[in-house]
Amino acid sequence: MEYRIEKDTMGEVKVPADKIWGAQTERSRNNFKIGAPASMPLEVVYGFAYLKKAAAFTNCELGVLPIEKRDLIATVCDEILEGKHDDQFPLVIWQTGSGTQSNMNVNEVIANRAHQLAGKKIGEGEKTIQPNDDVNKSQSSNDTFPTGMHIAAYKKIVENTIPGVQQLRDTLKKKSEDFKDVVKIGRTHLMDATPLTLGQEFSGYVSQLNHGLKALENTLPHLSELALGGTAVGTGLNTPKGYAKRVSEFIARFTELPFITAENKFEALAAHDAMVETHGALKQLAVSINKIANDIRLMASGPRSGIGELIIPANEPGSSIMPGKVNPTQCEAITMVCAQVMGNDVAVTVGGTQGHYELNVFKPMMIANVLQSAQLIGDACVSFEENCVAGIEPNHGRITELVNNSLMLVTALNTKIGYYKAAEIANTAHQNGTTLREEAINLGYVTAEEYDEWVKPEDMVGSLK
Amino acid sequence: MEYRIEKDTMGEVKVPADKIWGAQTERSRNNFKIGAPASMPLEVVYGFAYLKKAAAFTNCELGVLPIEKRDLIATVCDEILEGKHDDQFPLVIWQTGSGTQSNMNVNEVIANRAHQLAGKKIGEGEKTIQPNDDVNKSQSSNDTFPTGMHIAAYKKIVENTIPGVQQLRDTLKKKSEDFKDVVKIGRTHLMDATPLTLGQEFSGYVSQLNHGLKALENTLPHLSELALGGTAVGTGLNTPKGYAKRVSEFIARFTELPFITAENKFEALAAHDAMVETHGALKQLAVSINKIANDIRLMASGPRSGIGELIIPANEPGSSIMPGKVNPTQCEAITMVCAQVMGNDVAVTVGGTQGHYELNVFKPMMIANVLQSAQLIGDACVSFEENCVAGIEPNHGRITELVNNSLMLVTALNTKIGYYKAAEIANTAHQNGTTLREEAINLGYVTAEEYDEWVKPEDMVGSLK
Amino acid sequence: MEYRIEKDTMGEVKVPADKIWGAQTERSRNNFKIGAPASMPLEVVYGFAYLKKAAAFTNCELGVLPIEKRDLIATVCDEILEGKHDDQFPLVIWQTGSGTQSNMNVNEVIANRAHQLAGKKIGEGEKTIQPNDDVNKSQSSNDTFPTGMHIAAYKKIVENTIPGVQQLRDTLKKKSEDFKDVVKIGRTHLMDATPLTLGQEFSGYVSQLNHGLKALENTLPHLSELALGGTAVGTGLNTPKGYAKRVSEFIARFTELPFITAENKFEALAAHDAMVETHGALKQLAVSINKIANDIRLMASGPRSGIGELIIPANEPGSSIMPGKVNPTQCEAITMVCAQVMGNDVAVTVGGTQGHYELNVFKPMMIANVLQSAQLIGDACVSFEENCVAGIEPNHGRITELVNNSLMLVTALNTKIGYYKAAEIANTAHQNGTTLREEAINLGYVTAEEYDEWVKPEDMVGSLK
Amino acid sequence: MEYRIEKDTMGEVKVPADKIWGAQTERSRNNFKIGAPASMPLEVVYGFAYLKKAAAFTNCELGVLPIEKRDLIATVCDEILEGKHDDQFPLVIWQTGSGTQSNMNVNEVIANRAHQLAGKKIGEGEKTIQPNDDVNKSQSSNDTFPTGMHIAAYKKIVENTIPGVQQLRDTLKKKSEDFKDVVKIGRTHLMDATPLTLGQEFSGYVSQLNHGLKALENTLPHLSELALGGTAVGTGLNTPKGYAKRVSEFIARFTELPFITAENKFEALAAHDAMVETHGALKQLAVSINKIANDIRLMASGPRSGIGELIIPANEPGSSIMPGKVNPTQCEAITMVCAQVMGNDVAVTVGGTQGHYELNVFKPMMIANVLQSAQLIGDACVSFEENCVAGIEPNHGRITELVNNSLMLVTALNTKIGYYKAAEIANTAHQNGTTLREEAINLGYVTAEEYDEWVKPEDMVGSLK
Repeated sequence: MEYRIEKDTMGEVKVPADKIWGAQTERSRNNFKIGAPASMPLEVVYGFAYLKKAAAFTNCELGVLPIEKRDLIATVCDEILEGKHDDQFPLVIWQTGSGTQSNMNVNEVIANRAHQLAGKKIGEGEKTIQPNDDVNKSQSSNDTFPTGMHIAAYKKIVENTIPGVQQLRDTLKKKSEDFKDVVKIGRTHLMDATPLTLGQEFSGYVSQLNHGLKALENTLPHLSELALGGTAVGTGLNTPKGYAKRVSEFIARFTELPFITAENKFEALAAHDAMVETHGALKQLAVSINKIANDIRLMASGPRSGIGELIIPANEPGSSIMPGKVNPTQCEAITMVCAQVMGNDVAVTVGGTQGHYELNVFKPMMIANVLQSAQLIGDACVSFEENCVAGIEPNHGRITELVNNSLMLVTALNTKIGYYKAAEIANTAHQNGTTLREEAINLGYVTAEEYDEWVKPEDMVGSLK
Repeated sequence: MEYRIEKDTMGEVKVPADKIWGAQTERSRNNFKIGAPASMPLEVVYGFAYLKKAAAFTNCELGVLPIEKRDLIATVCDEILEGKHDDQFPLVIWQTGSGTQSNMNVNEVIANRAHQLAGKKIGEGEKTIQPNDDVNKSQSSNDTFPTGMHIAAYKKIVENTIPGVQQLRDTLKKKSEDFKDVVKIGRTHLMDATPLTLGQEFSGYVSQLNHGLKALENTLPHLSELALGGTAVGTGLNTPKGYAKRVSEFIARFTELPFITAENKFEALAAHDAMVETHGALKQLAVSINKIANDIRLMASGPRSGIGELIIPANEPGSSIMPGKVNPTQCEAITMVCAQVMGNDVAVTVGGTQGHYELNVFKPMMIANVLQSAQLIGDACVSFEENCVAGIEPNHGRITELVNNSLMLVTALNTKIGYYKAAEIANTAHQNGTTLREEAINLGYVTAEEYDEWVKPEDMVGSLK
Repeated sequence: MEYRIEKDTMGEVKVPADKIWGAQTERSRNNFKIGAPASMPLEVVYGFAYLKKAAAFTNCELGVLPIEKRDLIATVCDEILEGKHDDQFPLVIWQTGSGTQSNMNVNEVIANRAHQLAGKKIGEGEKTIQPNDDVNKSQSSNDTFPTGMHIAAYKKIVENTIPGVQQLRDTLKKKSEDFKDVVKIGRTHLMDATPLTLGQEFSGYVSQLNHGLKALENTLPHLSELALGGTAVGTGLNTPKGYAKRVSEFIARFTELPFITAENKFEALAAHDAMVETHGALKQLAVSINKIANDIRLMASGPRSGIGELIIPANEPGSSIMPGKVNPTQCEAITMVCAQVMGNDVAVTVGGTQGHYELNVFKPMMIANVLQSAQLIGDACVSFEENCVAGIEPNHGRITELVNNSLMLVTALNTKIGYYKAAEIANTAHQNGTTLREEAINLGYVTAEEYDEWVKPEDMVGSLK
Repeated sequence: MEYRIEKDTMGEVKVPADKIWGAQTERSRNNFKIGAPASMPLEVVYGFAYLKKAAAFTNCELGVLPIEKRDLIATVCDEILEGKHDDQFPLVIWQTGSGTQSNMNVNEVIANRAHQLAGKKIGEGEKTIQPNDDVNKSQSSNDTFPTGMHIAAYKKIVENTIPGVQQLRDTLKKKSEDFKDVVKIGRTHLMDATPLTLGQEFSGYVSQLNHGLKALENTLPHLSELALGGTAVGTGLNTPKGYAKRVSEFIARFTELPFITAENKFEALAAHDAMVETHGALKQLAVSINKIANDIRLMASGPRSGIGELIIPANEPGSSIMPGKVNPTQCEAITMVCAQVMGNDVAVTVGGTQGHYELNVFKPMMIANVLQSAQLIGDACVSFEENCVAGIEPNHGRITELVNNSLMLVTALNTKIGYYKAAEIANTAHQNGTTLREEAINLGYVTAEEYDEWVKPEDMVGSLK
């Protein structure tokens, strides 16, 4: 392979000739061969592109960077955001815990690419712009990386997670309305209980997701706070006056998202409670979704030896050995996602506890988990909605058969003849394998007319309306 | 031991003569010998007392319960809330997952105690009020237990957790102000970094707790929603018209807390995402507190071979073998609490995922964990504040010695002579064990006058002000 | 309340006159008001009683403690182990993370009680034996507390957890044999699959628990290693020659368990990986048990609208509102235990990571969680076995109805007519609501005779035998 | 893009013309757009390649597959294992929870590639070998996927994790020996304690890793049990006699690992406790490693305001803003790995609990987490060893300065003058900022000669030897 020589404060490093990264990126590549290459999420790189551009604009406006350098930096940042340099970010999550090396990776790529844009050859002549003194001006890894984390997470949440959950929520809501007159058996403790409508059952799912979306949205203000301007330890050393506030305004402008400068920069570097907070809400959504998907596959179980109340779409052959089998595969995919999110929550939590003094050094691991969870929940909700929930139909025959056969309809008699007599009717029917009506009359507690008037499943679902 | 006979729908049961619980409580006691007895938190029992009283008032107002029965029920509930019957609730967390047996425990105790209050002897004559038909009127375990959970959790959060965290936050804030002029070395990656003030460092802790309190408060609206009125499966079967809303108003009145009826009762029985949400915020606080307590013990480490920047109160002899040792025991207690809360969060999360159809049956476990975490965080914050944080003093001599000796002051030269030359000065001083000033001048990058003017720790902490 | 004065190196402390603990216990009680009092598990106290007695014997044998003192100490230790002083250990888990205060609590109680046994009044005259110099001789909190942890955990595992799991395993094994000829529908993805016997299904549960027991037993050797003899930092400072080995032999003799001295004392103080290892195995058992209990409640669901293949004992009225309802309450209790154990595992794990230098200071929290999990699993297995599994009966009629009606019997035809034709038969029967036999013949792929010969559920369960 | 038509039991599907997968793979690709493409680990695919080849050999030997088909299948499997078809496995983890679609992906690729090897064009003519009837003969997804999981995990553990941990352990052991005479201050509660040698400190790390390796090896027998032969539900339906045992022998031969057939196939399909067990041991290693890496970075902290006892290699510039800063980046990378492994453990645990009846459908998620953790621990240990631990040197000057200055040397006087007088000496020296020697003599408790004879750090580290 061909190489060129790059330098940093520690000396010379050989870099592959076809790559535009620099010495520190190459050092990190060599020193951290842990897991698959390039595992650092591109979303973080894009977050950096926004903030480097914003920093260049702010530095220029505040008089510490010439406009030519600003524009070169901004141009490369735009290229990065267009995905033109995705293969120039080879670093892994498992590097320095401050993400310094990914910050330098971005600085180096911007500097070298700017050199090209200035019509020169990388490695020849003095660098048109310096990775540290220009691209990183008024910045430190310690404030840029958390800023990149917040930009990446916020964007992912609002562009992927929330729309995905909403899409699922909306379809569940539509189903809830479509099914509002489908009276079915209720089940508590997995055992037969009093009836409700299928629409009511689905309305509970809608309510769960609405609460989950609210909880997730509640975390956005903390996530909107940016560390940039704190530099090395939060004091803002080496930044021009007014920098922190102004740079957050540029980031807000470029991302079209309501970012603000963090009121307290010391927290913003030393702790990532905003990540913990946001992931906590993602975990809550995972809990809700798990319940929903689990219910759906239980109700769709069968076709002949299960519950069989719901018909779900058959998207693929279900078994490589059992012909004719159709499985709730979307429920399985999404509940696996939920389990992953629960696990990721612990990783984020543990990382969150481990800041020391002025810096938390679990940054790359934390943002990688937040992004994975946010992506998986968003994607899985869409997949679940499109390939399963949208096609759910009630199995009316089965639903009616089960509700009419249920012993729990006896509860309607509680207020007429008291709990103990009602229980006696149910127990007798259960032991004899007979119907409630039969035993209620036999036992002399009600007449046939009374029974038919009092025990109507459709009258048992409505007092909340 | 002496017994009396109690009955339920399954037959007769022998109950200790000196206890006022009934048949179903006794069955549960015998059938669930798991862990220590009486582990069901009393806070849940008290939650039940509020709701049983509220239900009696509502039932009476809506014409389905005589005023005499209402008053008997209410009187016993008040007795329970005064702690007069604490020994009548012997059941464990590890019972039926709906908490039915604890609901019946309360129903039975109220009914039997009411019989006494009516001047009769328990077990003689017809019960003055019936546990199922009167005390449990318009209710099911399935809506009462979650209501008891929400009342218990909400009260614990606002009466214990939030005040405890606020007390800690307030003292940290005061310390932050007291220490605002104490310039000290910053540390990132545990390594020496540029200076900041001790007050700035503490301001980060304050900011963490403020964000954590906000996150916890964000969860209260979900927690304020009560399931009561949903009865068995969420439809409100067997409740009088207007019951759900009215009963929540009585609960709000009796508890003096802003409880409302849950908009969707199906969610309120089948899922406990509100518990997951609230515990998520408790976990976030644990993450923050862990960071704070950890920093404090690191800064207080020594007395001679550690960091030694803080002096913390000596509350007890630290070692049974090493004389004169004083340890950061409050930091240890509270970080153990943090680890427990992180574990409890997983238990609550797992429980939250496992609802089936119309009922989640991990209720007792979930509320027990929420209450434990809420109590421990509140108590531990108070203990930490009173016995440690309130007494923290800076070790001025040590702090000054360390900051003045630091190589990272060189950062102040970055904007004057560039990053590379500044690095060379620091590296040379590091290798030679000399001072920055010496090497900066030796290397010819600055004059002595320039150095003294440019490198002042107290000027490096302030650009954010 | 009446008090007496106790002293330690920090001065005088008022102690309730009716208590025999000393100054350091009282300090801890006052300084750590976190959660319920006396939460430190008594099992740890008993572990201390064994080790204090063993230390006294060893010190005496090695010539550093007079025999009179040895015997006084041993007598009090025996009293403690008989439960005579349970109310003398008021401290909480949430104290110093080394458990120093509980070590001193034991030292103080032994010293004061020995004073009484020597015929004197506590607080009068010089102490007959000194808590630090005699009771704690050749010891430190740092090696005694981990020793107490190991003794407590080992005993709990072998006396409670393993027998409990074995009891459940044995009954499941008996059921597996009883049910060996009960052919039933299999279910994969919750969907109908090819048949197996109920005995085979239960044999999987037996195999899970056997593997789990093996995994738990694999952790005992690590747990049998005792820290005692390491004293303050693991070097064994202030211990007589031969002490570490000899004291472990006395502990082994007194406990009748195979304890040995840890080969490496530095690990034994600074890390508690043995706790992490043992709890990991408890968690694995929780995972297995969760699966088993979940299956049983699903198979017992109904009575009319669920699966209904198993009949489980009716131990209590199931519903406070729905008469005649009987719920899988034992399954619920034990799965709640499983969720708790999963949570506790995270607490133990987090605690395990947090040792610093020569000491891990999450000791009390770690052992409290290990003991709780070990107790809950043991107790819950017994409760589940006695009150549920022992009484499980197959619902033969329902089982036969479901298996004969199943479309998955078609798999038996795969090897005769190929996967695609078999699938066609199953799909056709599914769409038409007919039987496989009918459609297999209609489609002309088999004759009636072939069908009857080839498709026999009882022949489909056996090739593994 | 160009397509060809592939068919399965549900009909026709368009597949990219340049790909050799079939209909079911393509369906899965379209139906599960969740997260990054091709996230199913290649290790699982390779596990399948081994088992498909073994199944072909077994089927042939037992007379149900012609030798020509066997050889075609085996040739393609070998090609897959050589990495020639890595781009033919585009499916994601988040698919059906049985991994059916990945099983079919392998079946389809083998069938189509065999068609090519037979000199034909994919999509033309009847398939030379059938994906279901030939490649999948005597198999089901339900037994192949768990077999692939076990092969993949076992190989990863023995080829990557164990050697990586051993490499770290060996170097720590060498350092422990190198540092055996370096007497240093001990620290408990982060506070100064009695001395030990740096070698002793490192020996604790070695012991932790030895215990962790033992724990990991203890899990291998469970992992060596293969599900293959159980087919759809564990009964072995549609397998020839002797198949299960024989196929495991072929797998053992091809992989050169001691695989055996699982004694109980019902467990092997329905539960993945072996994954839970193995990951539990990985988590234990993470706990140990976290402690070790944390200690090292604390001891290396500085250079001037930290502990400064260790010198670690400077591998890269540490800061983008602070010149001359060198950070413990390898410690950071590996502790981030530890946090991830702790999180993954919860994901695996949750997945493990969720089997239903005859099948656990969290398979792909579980194996993905096990493989990630196993890879990361192995890789991170190597990186940590090579780039950090191997280069660790004691900072002798600093170590000696700290130990000689320590107040905890007073403990050596406990056995001479008693705990209380020793404490008084230490406290006095602490308050006066003087030396122990000075105060010991001043207080009249020892003579200068006694002090010098009794208080020697190097004599305080040895009684365990």
